Amino acid sequence: MKFNIALLAGDGIGPEVINEAVKVSDAIAKKFNHEINWTPALTGACAIDAVGVPYPDETHEICMKADAVLFGAIGHPKYDNDPSAKVRPEQGLLLMRKKLGLFANVRPTFTFPSLIDNSPLKRERIEGTDLVFLRELTGGIYFGEKGRKDNGDTAFDNCVYTRAEVQRLAKKGFELAMTRSKKLCCVDKANVLETSRLWRETVQAMEKDYPEVEVSYEFVDAVAMRLVQWPNSYDVLITENLFGDILTDEASVISGSMGLMPSASVGEHTSLYEPIHGSYPQATGLNIANPLATILSAAMMFEDAFGLKAEADAIRAVVNKSLAEGIVTEDLAPKGAKAYKTSEVGDWLVANL
Amino acid sequence: MKFNIALLAGDGIGPEVINEAVKVSDAIAKKFNHEINWTPALTGACAIDAVGVPYPDETHEICMKADAVLFGAIGHPKYDNDPSAKVRPEQGLLLMRKKLGLFANVRPTFTFPSLIDNSPLKRERIEGTDLVFLRELTGGIYFGEKGRKDNGDTAFDNCVYTRAEVQRLAKKGFELAMTRSKKLCCVDKANVLETSRLWRETVQAMEKDYPEVEVSYEFVDAVAMRLVQWPNSYDVLITENLFGDILTDEASVISGSMGLMPSASVGEHTSLYEPIHGSYPQATGLNIANPLATILSAAMMFEDAFGLKAEADAIRAVVNKSLAEGIVTEDLAPKGAKAYKTSEVGDWLVANL
Ligand SMILES: CC(C)[C@H](C(=O)O)[C@@H](O)C(=O)O
Ligand SMILES: CC(C)[C@H](C(=O)O)[C@@H](O)C(=O)O
Repeated sequence: MKFNIALLAGDGIGPEVINEAVKVSDAIAKKFNHEINWTPALTGACAIDAVGVPYPDETHEICMKADAVLFGAIGHPKYDNDPSAKVRPEQGLLLMRKKLGLFANVRPTFTFPSLIDNSPLKRERIEGTDLVFLRELTGGIYFGEKGRKDNGDTAFDNCVYTRAEVQRLAKKGFELAMTRSKKLCCVDKANVLETSRLWRETVQAMEKDYPEVEVSYEFVDAVAMRLVQWPNSYDVLITENLFGDILTDEASVISGSMGLMPSASVGEHTSLYEPIHGSYPQATGLNIANPLATILSAAMMFEDAFGLKAEADAIRAVVNKSLAEGIVTEDLAPKGAKAYKTSEVGDWLVANL
Repeated sequence: MKFNIALLAGDGIGPEVINEAVKVSDAIAKKFNHEINWTPALTGACAIDAVGVPYPDETHEICMKADAVLFGAIGHPKYDNDPSAKVRPEQGLLLMRKKLGLFANVRPTFTFPSLIDNSPLKRERIEGTDLVFLRELTGGIYFGEKGRKDNGDTAFDNCVYTRAEVQRLAKKGFELAMTRSKKLCCVDKANVLETSRLWRETVQAMEKDYPEVEVSYEFVDAVAMRLVQWPNSYDVLITENLFGDILTDEASVISGSMGLMPSASVGEHTSLYEPIHGSYPQATGLNIANPLATILSAAMMFEDAFGLKAEADAIRAVVNKSLAEGIVTEDLAPKGAKAYKTSEVGDWLVANL
């Protein structure tokens, strides 16, 4: 098969981790007789520096034409301390999500047996955790009307959801639950918010179409607690944009393997794969960043965007092997053990595929 | 001194834990020569059952006349499964907060040395944790305009904040920080929300009035992570209503002592003290619920509402003694050890004051 992949490396360590994901993807493609055509494009702070906007039209065109997008990370400290600045890298992220119609953010949290002791949680609490959040990504309070009144003394943000938006996200949730343990948790704040009541009634009405799926409804505050107490009691969780932002980040640290967690954002026009970690500016250019989350995001891309499960499994297998053999960057190297460079980890994976 | 305290026991185990807090408060009053006049009033499901509304006018009158309110817990399963029901106990809670002007919810999270191993977190992560959230409680998306359009297919919730609302909450935060380690964290989502940008700019403008306080600004998703990773890195945190709902609950489970955490809600007309746990309906009438969170809430009341620190410290000291000597309810009793009844714990505390 032949694929066109848009390559958005972004800022900070983005280019370094993306580089390793490209190496591994190319090696897999070669092994399984595929051909990948990578098209690099600018986004984030580097795009602001180059052309003045964080998500240039040219980048959008490249993404729209691609079969999938592989994304690194964006953000630079020079834009950090002033969230009200006119142009910021995150605006590019939101614009990209909206323009590409990436309405569902898929965020798995799972554990690696060899890394379980990195978790801030006790072993018995985290062991066996394997959950997936589906976060709605193009609606809610992120994209509602916002502004000021009363000479700037009153601010407002409107949260809006339509039944159709909830349905398309929930459909993905039910479908995903069917491929897993058939447990779906709808996370909302239906005791306070009207949008949450719409979420809940919409999901309730869909239950009959998936009689095998056991659906539960939990308030967002209760989920924030149970994620710390018994994360292994969850399977698939669906939720709106802002709750998803908070809870997926909370979930990502409980595994103790945040540097390894991949993600996907799927939608109308294409799908995008990215590590959940940030651009880690302090490490830029040092060749020390952990590339595994990006490489595992590429594995998600092979499986979900191209339907190539064997290829994805081959990537995951070699990643597991590298972990088991201690071929890891400094964030994962035990005290006193050798820490490998970003590029050395990639080289080892390619050699051992 | 003489005090009038409104006593809102509520539902489920509310009356049982309130009963022990009254016993301990009366014993303290006697010891220190005060006189407490308790006025019971209905709220929650029991108020709906009795008079059709969850926060009756009569209850409101009693609270307004009182020097402080001691609150148990509300909620009953018969109202749980239908968040869109016309009358629900939580509506009473929101109405009460609004009508009493309880704009600041004070939620400490701290550890008890003898209970540290109950935490889902590893000891080295949780040890030394002693933080306080100040959650704005009468504004934001909880109280903004909400409703439906398009024949019910579109739902909206409006989040609104005024500069004055932020200032009065932040003022409490700065003042509290001055009595502690002088570290204040403003939690917002200023990279996305206009209300958060108003929060941030308002707090920034107040920094000059508290030159000794070191202020940091963190995004809500980052705080959701760091609370699990390094809770002991926080001191005082201020945040808006919905973020506070999620984060204070997350914080409450990390200590492993949720059944012991007190809280206060302070405001324009009076102040209210309550345990953070719920009404625990399954345990109703069994005399097994842990009364310590309510008793420690009464201690907060003595100190903060009446300025009686010695009285508050006496309550805390005897609670610590009961923990150290294992006079605890079943939730805290180690396997095989004797579990005391709710009323037995109260009796022991009174006897050992
Ligand atoms: C950078 C920010 C706008 C973004 C979000 O809130 O969606 C980030 O936190 C994320 O989760 O991808
Ligand atoms: C019951 C509910 C309305 C309430 C809230 O969201 O404020 C509760 O979760 C709380 O935190 O006191």
